[in-house]
Amino acid sequence: LSNVIVNEVDSPEPRRRSDGERSHAAILEEAAQLATVIGIDGLSIARLAEAVGMSKSGLFAHFGSKEELQIATIKAASRTFTQRVIDPTRVAPTGLDRLRGLAENFLRYLESTYPGGCFFASVAAELDTRPGPVRDLALRINAAWLGGLERAIHDAQAEGDIDPAEDPEQLAFELNSFLLLANQQFVVSRTGEPLDRARRAIDRRLSR
Amino acid sequence: LSNVIVNEVDSPEPRRRSDGERSHAAILEEAAQLATVIGIDGLSIARLAEAVGMSKSGLFAHFGSKEELQIATIKAASRTFTQRVIDPTRVAPTGLDRLRGLAENFLRYLESTYPGGCFFASVAAELDTRPGPVRDLALRINAAWLGGLERAIHDAQAEGDIDPAEDPEQLAFELNSFLLLANQQFVVSRTGEPLDRARRAIDRRLSR
Repeated sequence: LSNVIVNEVDSPEPRRRSDGERSHAAILEEAAQLATVIGIDGLSIARLAEAVGMSKSGLFAHFGSKEELQIATIKAASRTFTQRVIDPTRVAPTGLDRLRGLAENFLRYLESTYPGGCFFASVAAELDTRPGPVRDLALRINAAWLGGLERAIHDAQAEGDIDPAEDPEQLAFELNSFLLLANQQFVVSRTGEPLDRARRAIDRRLSR
Repeated sequence: LSNVIVNEVDSPEPRRRSDGERSHAAILEEAAQLATVIGIDGLSIARLAEAVGMSKSGLFAHFGSKEELQIATIKAASRTFTQRVIDPTRVAPTGLDRLRGLAENFLRYLESTYPGGCFFASVAAELDTRPGPVRDLALRINAAWLGGLERAIHDAQAEGDIDPAEDPEQLAFELNSFLLLANQQFVVSRTGEPLDRARRAIDRRLSR
């Protein structure tokens, strides 16, 4: 999964960043925060300029168009997702540990990262009926996430921790269902209850 | 559930409708269709006037403001939901039959009613971070849906068809998860595959 997402965002090796790049990253972080509240379609250069206190022409120097800004914001959110949700599972000793780690990291990420919960759930719900390159990129990242869950399930089956008769796609669908409803209810309720419901559902589903 | 939703929308007894009312209903049907594609926040009187081929002043005679239009649209969508998803389950002989009927009717409704899938999932995802009376009404209808699932589970427990040790709220959360991810994937893929995944997940969850 992480390979797919990393390729998706052309992430280079970590290196020292110049001031210009730091500022670019800070602008995109603000853009991602804003997109989960007002929607990615509401994310115009004018609106972002107001939020970060820069001139519109200053922002145009960073992003030539609204669409470029949206694509850059999605790529930045993808890097954040990889760092918070996927990277910590690289050291998991088994497929089942990785699967549980992905789910738990997702629940923590949605609680602590954006005001509108999971960035990609928010963008996917908004753009589902609006074809175009921004939607396509968001959908590819969602598909990569599901693919990562499926690979962890495959590995857990090979290791004898999940019944080999399970269909990995079906199981990934069910686990992802719990995570996404938890996200939706968390954004509205701002309580940990839906996150705990998802944890119980996942525990039950994997403990058989 | 249906009582809650019917109260919610102040639905009167069925009666003969005048031409004016028919036209009003037709406008709201168009508004609900449009809202699942452009979002309920994009649903202005100007935009709807264009879609139904009426003058803005003609529409103002029906709805005094954008917010009134949005509220009326949600109430109309609630009536449609009650008719398509809830009413057919009134004759179900058992709680388990009613529960399965609600799920199956939901899957058929989302396939055949609006271009953007379930109206309420679409509106809830859009308005989750935007407080106000439009969001509150949509959330109350979502809560009534979950409550209806819970009551069917309670009845099925009393009838011995579902383990009395199950927490009805937890089980309703899990079943609703499957339905909502099916909705989300259906809107994007336009194939029956996610609907069948939800059916398999529900069958498995209820057959123990």
